[in-house]
Amino acid sequence: MKFGGTSMAGSERIRRVANIVRRQQAAGHEVAVVVSAMAGETDRLVGFCREANPLYDPAEYDVVVASGEQVTSGLLALTLQSLGCKARSWLGWQLPIHTDDAHAKARIEGIDSEALLASMAAGEIAVIPGFQGLSDAGRVTTLGRGGSDTSAVAVAAGIGADRCDIYTDVDGVYTTDPRIVAKARKLKYVTYEEMLELASVGSKVLQTRSVSLAMKEGVRVQVLSSFIDDDATPADEIPGTLIVSDEELEGLDMERQLITGIAADKNEAKIILTRVPDRPGAVATIFGPLAQANINVDMIIQNVGRDKGETDVTFTVPSADLLRAQTLLEAQKEAIGYNRIITDGKVAKISVVGVGMKSHAGVAATMFRALADRGINIQAISTSEIKVSVLIDEDETELAVRVLHTAYEMDADEAA
Amino acid sequence: MKFGGTSMAGSERIRRVANIVRRQQAAGHEVAVVVSAMAGETDRLVGFCREANPLYDPAEYDVVVASGEQVTSGLLALTLQSLGCKARSWLGWQLPIHTDDAHAKARIEGIDSEALLASMAAGEIAVIPGFQGLSDAGRVTTLGRGGSDTSAVAVAAGIGADRCDIYTDVDGVYTTDPRIVAKARKLKYVTYEEMLELASVGSKVLQTRSVSLAMKEGVRVQVLSSFIDDDATPADEIPGTLIVSDEELEGLDMERQLITGIAADKNEAKIILTRVPDRPGAVATIFGPLAQANINVDMIIQNVGRDKGETDVTFTVPSADLLRAQTLLEAQKEAIGYNRIITDGKVAKISVVGVGMKSHAGVAATMFRALADRGINIQAISTSEIKVSVLIDEDETELAVRVLHTAYEMDADEAA
Repeated sequence: MKFGGTSMAGSERIRRVANIVRRQQAAGHEVAVVVSAMAGETDRLVGFCREANPLYDPAEYDVVVASGEQVTSGLLALTLQSLGCKARSWLGWQLPIHTDDAHAKARIEGIDSEALLASMAAGEIAVIPGFQGLSDAGRVTTLGRGGSDTSAVAVAAGIGADRCDIYTDVDGVYTTDPRIVAKARKLKYVTYEEMLELASVGSKVLQTRSVSLAMKEGVRVQVLSSFIDDDATPADEIPGTLIVSDEELEGLDMERQLITGIAADKNEAKIILTRVPDRPGAVATIFGPLAQANINVDMIIQNVGRDKGETDVTFTVPSADLLRAQTLLEAQKEAIGYNRIITDGKVAKISVVGVGMKSHAGVAATMFRALADRGINIQAISTSEIKVSVLIDEDETELAVRVLHTAYEMDADEAA
Repeated sequence: MKFGGTSMAGSERIRRVANIVRRQQAAGHEVAVVVSAMAGETDRLVGFCREANPLYDPAEYDVVVASGEQVTSGLLALTLQSLGCKARSWLGWQLPIHTDDAHAKARIEGIDSEALLASMAAGEIAVIPGFQGLSDAGRVTTLGRGGSDTSAVAVAAGIGADRCDIYTDVDGVYTTDPRIVAKARKLKYVTYEEMLELASVGSKVLQTRSVSLAMKEGVRVQVLSSFIDDDATPADEIPGTLIVSDEELEGLDMERQLITGIAADKNEAKIILTRVPDRPGAVATIFGPLAQANINVDMIIQNVGRDKGETDVTFTVPSADLLRAQTLLEAQKEAIGYNRIITDGKVAKISVVGVGMKSHAGVAATMFRALADRGINIQAISTSEIKVSVLIDEDETELAVRVLHTAYEMDADEAA
């Protein structure tokens, strides 16, 4: 079980969490719990580090910021004890949770679970601070912001857990953002691949890294709310959304819809380079420098050139990197040999996602027709095995999502 | 070097501390620094523990409260780095600082200093969180409130430091409390034994435990202020008070006064049991139960009985334990066989302390005469090799201290 910072913010909420945990133990489960720092605490600690040294040494930064989860793990263990449970905390260096030495953005390499399993078998609830680990050099590491989800999945894999329940402030994964579409439906199941597409294009329920790790390790992850009325649901029921493999999904959900969800991402910006020479290596001169500068390029579309031997190249980068990308490309104008650079920060990427899509050709057609019917102009298209994405004007984001949600017959009352 | 919570309270103060540390390194010293948590932080964390579980498990309490010093050690390392120094933090479990497993009040058993010495020899300033250690079971321990002074002395002993400088909010040890006697003088030197007597009777500059450890390990401790004007004193001068052995003192301070200091303690309460049977074992029936209840008995005076075969017994306990002691003794009335119990919470213990006293019989006489001249009634007397203490009415505390400070010719203008 993993609880985020909002769930751990203060004694009263920690008591709520402890009750949820106790209930799972009472239902016969051996339980390990991964916790985040209290909401706001990590920001406070990062602020101290910045004040101490704007160019901070990430190894010492890790010493400071890892303390937030240390506090909440001790407090949850104490609170569980006050409810009559046996419980103890296991800090990152105590298990240990082995990571590489990339301080402030470390990757988990493995977990020694022997002592943990023995303690759990003896009826002790294990409470583990998320976000932290130990490098081979014996120093504290952290996984980067939001790393506690990844910690939880790694612990679940390490102990061979039946399930990794990630408690958040939403009660599951929805067909789309319920703030945009009131008729959005909560999904009972979603595959790792779908979750990755939904997460990376804007449904920020879980850290992408944690979903990748769950897929690699075959950990069944459930997303659910820590604010549900606990006594209303049997402990063994799945009140949230279960993230599973393709194979497991087939057994669980025979009557699955073609499309699982619709995601919108406003954090993309579009760049067009006009009249790029259509010769081998031209594209490399564009994207090489961007890659070196750690700028992620997402969609890439090469349009047919108006003149022979030339082509327009359109691509997207994160909005935050637009200026940097533009500066870089302008410096490379000679080398690339383009005519003009056109940028647009006000675009949105709308994606329809679903494993069912693999065997259905009509998905893209439905999408294009539905958008065209409402006069929404498609600026670019990109597809993957389980996704079709289009780039549109940012102002039309909500309209497009609603239109598509209806077009794919996902609205809640229609499904009912 | 050790810095307390007031010195570590916030980025600006930590920068001040870093400058003081850098100055010592610039003067050619290899430096290890022990830090407390930011002022108020440990109270905040203890508050969380109490809310989580009033009867808290001290092992988990330690996990929570040790985080405060972890934060400041990382921040000081970062700040030193921002000043161009090489620096790194060494957490209690990293050195490790070995302690017993008496969580929340652990005792240091030893320090592995090999890696620390290698790092310091390479020019790195070592920053070590005070107050924390590691038990043989591999769990976080803490030394009890104020334990950072003890950590500092233990580290100094472990690395064979020339000196352990403890920075506080006072600039040294005074002949008596300067808030009571304006003419109190700062002492240049004081012996471990004197410091113990001065500390345990009310001059709360250093934790008693840290002084005992310094005496046992022969660590030269300097008490000085972290708020002095640093640039005004050469780095090698002793601006505070140096605590040393008797032997070293003799070489340093030939013209030493008979009396080193005067301490007052208002936290004592007096208990008189009247007409206790004067037979073997009677005293044991009084103090056995008190010892079992962890009530410290300080002064004990057995007066001559008015009637044959009976005696009055007077003793003192901490004010905070007076009610508990009274209840215990009333329950034992039959067993002890006393007639009446008389208690007085409004008493003060005044002590004159000095190693010179060993060879001077007149000290006590001077004390009694000076107090009698001002009409201050002495309720009880107790002596040790380097101390004479009297119990008086609490209202006369300040008067008695001033009278004695003058009587022993310690007033600043007289000494000059």
